[in-house]
Amino acid sequence: MGDRPADIGVYGLGTMGANLALNIAEKGFRVAVFNRTVEKGFALRDDNPGIGDNVVPASTLKEFVASLKSPRLVLFMVPAGKIVDAEIAEVAPLLSPGDVMIDAGNADFNDTVRRSRDVEGTGLNFVGMGVSGGELGARHGPSIMVGGAKDTYPQLEPILTKIAAKYEGAPCVAWLGPDGAGHFVKTIHNGIEYADMQMIAEIYGIMRDGMGMQADAMAAIFGEWNKGGLSSYLIEITAVNLAEKDPETGKPLVDLIVDEAGQKGTGRWAVIEAQKLGVGATTIEAAVSARGVSSRRSERAEASRFYAGIATEAADFSAEAAGIAELEQALETAKIIAYAQGYATMASASEEFGWNLPLGTIAEIWRAGCIIRSQFLDDIAGAYETGGVVNLLQSPAFIGRVEAGQTALRKVVAKASMAGIPVPALSAALAYFDDYRRARGTTNLTQAQRDLFGAHTFHRLDRDGVFHHRWPAV
Amino acid sequence: MGDRPADIGVYGLGTMGANLALNIAEKGFRVAVFNRTVEKGFALRDDNPGIGDNVVPASTLKEFVASLKSPRLVLFMVPAGKIVDAEIAEVAPLLSPGDVMIDAGNADFNDTVRRSRDVEGTGLNFVGMGVSGGELGARHGPSIMVGGAKDTYPQLEPILTKIAAKYEGAPCVAWLGPDGAGHFVKTIHNGIEYADMQMIAEIYGIMRDGMGMQADAMAAIFGEWNKGGLSSYLIEITAVNLAEKDPETGKPLVDLIVDEAGQKGTGRWAVIEAQKLGVGATTIEAAVSARGVSSRRSERAEASRFYAGIATEAADFSAEAAGIAELEQALETAKIIAYAQGYATMASASEEFGWNLPLGTIAEIWRAGCIIRSQFLDDIAGAYETGGVVNLLQSPAFIGRVEAGQTALRKVVAKASMAGIPVPALSAALAYFDDYRRARGTTNLTQAQRDLFGAHTFHRLDRDGVFHHRWPAV
Repeated sequence: MGDRPADIGVYGLGTMGANLALNIAEKGFRVAVFNRTVEKGFALRDDNPGIGDNVVPASTLKEFVASLKSPRLVLFMVPAGKIVDAEIAEVAPLLSPGDVMIDAGNADFNDTVRRSRDVEGTGLNFVGMGVSGGELGARHGPSIMVGGAKDTYPQLEPILTKIAAKYEGAPCVAWLGPDGAGHFVKTIHNGIEYADMQMIAEIYGIMRDGMGMQADAMAAIFGEWNKGGLSSYLIEITAVNLAEKDPETGKPLVDLIVDEAGQKGTGRWAVIEAQKLGVGATTIEAAVSARGVSSRRSERAEASRFYAGIATEAADFSAEAAGIAELEQALETAKIIAYAQGYATMASASEEFGWNLPLGTIAEIWRAGCIIRSQFLDDIAGAYETGGVVNLLQSPAFIGRVEAGQTALRKVVAKASMAGIPVPALSAALAYFDDYRRARGTTNLTQAQRDLFGAHTFHRLDRDGVFHHRWPAV
Repeated sequence: MGDRPADIGVYGLGTMGANLALNIAEKGFRVAVFNRTVEKGFALRDDNPGIGDNVVPASTLKEFVASLKSPRLVLFMVPAGKIVDAEIAEVAPLLSPGDVMIDAGNADFNDTVRRSRDVEGTGLNFVGMGVSGGELGARHGPSIMVGGAKDTYPQLEPILTKIAAKYEGAPCVAWLGPDGAGHFVKTIHNGIEYADMQMIAEIYGIMRDGMGMQADAMAAIFGEWNKGGLSSYLIEITAVNLAEKDPETGKPLVDLIVDEAGQKGTGRWAVIEAQKLGVGATTIEAAVSARGVSSRRSERAEASRFYAGIATEAADFSAEAAGIAELEQALETAKIIAYAQGYATMASASEEFGWNLPLGTIAEIWRAGCIIRSQFLDDIAGAYETGGVVNLLQSPAFIGRVEAGQTALRKVVAKASMAGIPVPALSAALAYFDDYRRARGTTNLTQAQRDLFGAHTFHRLDRDGVFHHRWPAV
């Protein structure tokens, strides 16, 4: 094991924690590891020849803490919630002023704000840090979104820049703001991921149910799309998912998988925070809700029997090149709108919480390592570099693309609506776009109604002030 | 003033509190009133000859409490949040075991649960009670949704049944469940109200921007619709809102009102709770988000300039009878779907919190007094009376209506999508319906993706168990 103290400790050796520890070790840092099931740490060392030399397992928490050099960096990678609080309570008494506790799991940013406050005055530091990239990202280079006190970051930076993904050489890690900022950004990242995946699933649904395509054919199309404006990790893996055959039956594996999607809560958090901020993140909401609907599978089966006979139009989609190009353009346009919603949510949070979030930097560190990595994020980073972005939909970098693609999105939504193929996220994107670009909306009627039944008052176009009208009795 | 003690006390004499106090007094009960601005209570007595004899204003909180008969009923009608906690803290020490504190304002039901727990063991009782109907409802008969301990309800019942709205003689008030049940149901009521209003606003937008109709003509149509399946308070007042002229300019008042909608938070609560429960309440979410978009008016004006030149199709809506009938049927169908979402949220909460909510009774007490009152709610009550309702969309009472109306909804969503007229709630309703009635969804692809990047595992259609596949490296 050697005597040199460890550079950092990882507490929690599930899939993400174990892979992150190996990533750290591989980059030449000594990493102490600890898990409630103590054997896991020793196995991690023994099962990874070479890298394992830098892994320092501990049998007890005390030993784990004692193996760290000072100031100590203790990184927790455990499921969100009470476990985090329990482990902080266990570890904190063993630490000294100047030491840093890092919650690298997904966390509700409200919890991170609370935990940051709780350590204030103890001399300890708390860092809430989002890590995206799944198992493979953790192992070979994730995107890392760091929150917490700014002057704590330099202590983590040498390790984080080494283990993070690189985009053209630039490490995908940055300090984004105080207390909950890192976890908030990770939450919105995941929300966008939900929307992105749902929109892909909707296009898949159109291909499968509206165009009668087989998995192989769809795989080829997604493979092609990955060379164009949609080029991204999610499109790439969609092609892989669709091409994969079940080893036993030889059938497309995707056709054998049950259509019930799980969720771990981060998408939901994104929706809840957007709601609290009064921002419409309707594509994310549509995505999270669609997973909810999917989970009621037997109820859907019942409903399908009740409505088996309803008249919908034959799908008007074409598998010819023009039809495929229309789907591609619709997806790309809806994706821009979904990201605009996610970014608008972060912009609003930044203002609300005084974080001064570096939105361009966030796009930069999402360009590699994380699940939503794509060329497209480089475009977003570019848009923010020029500055003054009110909303991505008002950015010169995207106006032209949206203008060019909006007709395709309209057609796809209209045709799917007629054909009975659900497109909740795509239609939410279109509705948001049309509402957002409308100088005169319709909530003047809403305000009239509210004033009538609740004396909520209204503003007038033709003069300043707040007005209440004496409406006729109803 | 007389010496007879008051039957109930109302603390908080804003619009709702003052009107509720007058309602109580008018029904022959003596009502003590108190407000931080003490004069309000005396004015309420003096300005309402006849009724005022039953109003007992107090100069101090102590006098207010002393004027109540035992066990005391103290009803708070103040804005949600910390004010409620502050007033409870003020009043509770003046009360005796057996007394009842009633929060009749809108409250986040989580707060109501907490407050209910806080009084446990003190001998006092806490009731969270939703009151709907706005100013006029409070004065002449609201719909009242009562939560709290069941054995407390009989103490309130004599007063509440007198002051509540009546539907064919039946008072629109009921005890719905323990602690937060009443406020939860009120929250969903308001969420449905948001969706209902938003869908009306979307149809109005189609008439105005897609058919070039003037306010008068629209008023006439909503007036007609109020005689059919859409017959409801909200449709009725929409006709009134649209027909009303600005006294000064003679123009339709609705045309002079600014299109920025306010919100007081209950719609947002509904979305947040639906999300926490994993239920898709997408129509409510679309409605709340649309208010958010509307509030960014200057940003919308900017966006409209950027996209002034985009190509959308000429609206294909017709102002002929068939075109109007199509809108009516689309709105009615979307409304059924929105209510199904609201009811599904309540059903899920009932299970989650063990409330055993009487969903049929809830429809019954919404038939009069509240903002969403309608004939339609009588149909919902009827559906629950026959029992075994999994979801309103699976109820025989609605299947036929949805079957008959879904084509109109499809056409309206498709045409609005092509014409660039936003229909976020109508399209959310359609997407939910199509997703809900689909035996085979598309989240099998989502699960394949999640298993590839995060080893989240999946289920198979052809055998039991939990599976992880070794996907090709990406």
